[in-house]
Amino acid sequence: MIKSFDDVLKKAGRLGIKKVAVACAEDKPVLEAIKGAKEKNIADAILVGDKEKILKILDELNMKEQDYQIVDEKNPKAAALKAVEFVSSKKANMVMKGLIDTASFLRAVLDKEIGLRTGKLMSHVAVFETEKFDRLLFMTDAAFNIAPDINAKVDILNNAVLMARAIGIDMPKVAPICAVEVVNPNMQATIDAAILTKMNDRGQIKNCIVDGPLALDNALSEEAAAHKNIKSEVAGKADIFLMSNIEAGNVFYKALTYASNCRNGGIVVGTAAPVILTSRADSFESKLNSIALAALTAHEIDK
Amino acid sequence: MIKSFDDVLKKAGRLGIKKVAVACAEDKPVLEAIKGAKEKNIADAILVGDKEKILKILDELNMKEQDYQIVDEKNPKAAALKAVEFVSSKKANMVMKGLIDTASFLRAVLDKEIGLRTGKLMSHVAVFETEKFDRLLFMTDAAFNIAPDINAKVDILNNAVLMARAIGIDMPKVAPICAVEVVNPNMQATIDAAILTKMNDRGQIKNCIVDGPLALDNALSEEAAAHKNIKSEVAGKADIFLMSNIEAGNVFYKALTYASNCRNGGIVVGTAAPVILTSRADSFESKLNSIALAALTAHEIDK
Repeated sequence: MIKSFDDVLKKAGRLGIKKVAVACAEDKPVLEAIKGAKEKNIADAILVGDKEKILKILDELNMKEQDYQIVDEKNPKAAALKAVEFVSSKKANMVMKGLIDTASFLRAVLDKEIGLRTGKLMSHVAVFETEKFDRLLFMTDAAFNIAPDINAKVDILNNAVLMARAIGIDMPKVAPICAVEVVNPNMQATIDAAILTKMNDRGQIKNCIVDGPLALDNALSEEAAAHKNIKSEVAGKADIFLMSNIEAGNVFYKALTYASNCRNGGIVVGTAAPVILTSRADSFESKLNSIALAALTAHEIDK
Repeated sequence: MIKSFDDVLKKAGRLGIKKVAVACAEDKPVLEAIKGAKEKNIADAILVGDKEKILKILDELNMKEQDYQIVDEKNPKAAALKAVEFVSSKKANMVMKGLIDTASFLRAVLDKEIGLRTGKLMSHVAVFETEKFDRLLFMTDAAFNIAPDINAKVDILNNAVLMARAIGIDMPKVAPICAVEVVNPNMQATIDAAILTKMNDRGQIKNCIVDGPLALDNALSEEAAAHKNIKSEVAGKADIFLMSNIEAGNVFYKALTYASNCRNGGIVVGTAAPVILTSRADSFESKLNSIALAALTAHEIDK
């Protein structure tokens, strides 16, 4: 069973080394994570960007130039496109954002000719290891999809299921999270949750067990679920937390990150290959965790 | 400065004892909290409900019958109305839910003749003492208002400001919480946040400092705010977290309660007197904290 980021890192290290293409790699915290990923046998890297600056940082970090393929491209947008192209042409398994703004990076990821579009919705999945729960919590979407309708939620859910299975949760339990655990026709989130559950019953959503509406407490905690007398295969044991809107997702992400003791990582899925989009505020550990999640997901996609 | 529930309990104990009317008081966990409130000199109680059952529980808890006014009313709805009437007729300062379903209890609270309506919106405010932040966090609304529009948000904000001031935060800093800290015309929450901020600038919202949009991290943490170069009197120091919808509020509440180490309490405001609406899952401590918050708020309203 995969229950912690130690498990994730170990599993990723046993896959056979993957390759990550970094867009605008002249970024010290990103290169530190790249170094860590190599040391753990998770990923090699193609570093696209300002070669002079990249070499300087490699030197500072005691990383060997000959260990990496370096592609000199000073223009950030061109560098992003080149990094993405390494992935779409199968020379790398995943792409990572370096020192470039998110909008420009994503434009390259979604480029019509060489990008990583699949026709499905792109979504963000964050993974948390908390001190209070003995399993990894997959949460989506805190970053991209503002107010997803039912069709968007199906894509977001499927993206997270693919990723959870890649990490090692064969039949993930999915809780569409609402403010209450009953269907309230005045709360769209509860209606969508009921619909998703029935779509799962009917085999329209596969490879997982969906049950909602659930509130966060009774999705997280068996004790809270028992307190409310909820009979459900998912209540108290949810692996995937499907948030009803970006505000709820973002608050979940940040409440855990800032008010609890946790480890995390996250990637973008729904694309032809995983996309690593860490932010400056993320720790080294969180960036490394994200690379490991991406490596496992890439392995599953490439199967 | 009031920074913890110890401070809140001490301050409430110094006010002069208040009186709480309990609807359907035949509920052991509620009576335990009532006992604690009396011991801390915060509140006496009028116990409305099934007298026989109430006396039995008082005995179990070593509470003295003569310390309480007991009103025998076995019908739950009639008991709720009687408890509310003690408050609207100024014989008690606040009302608390006992062994009765929430909907029936609230119907009594909102009764047109003897209820506690004010013409303002009723809202729930939760208060958290966390292990990571050295101040109390007021969060609203995780319970009542599903998708408040801008007018509703003004009422919800004013309700929380009145309460925060009653607890001892003279000029509370209010952060309307969004998924991002920039105005994004595709995200209604960020538009509302900008509007509320300007209404505060123009003196339409008083007795507080509002600044938003902010995301949860940069409202909570000065470090996160500095990371994003946000210049704001509220960023990193927010007292009141105005959530954009019930899902975001509920997730904040439950992420703190279930995934972090915290103490909490909460009351309903916007009514003529505070309403204590704890749930069975709440701890003794949380119920007692809620009574103390209600006592302080009642004191402010009655000034």
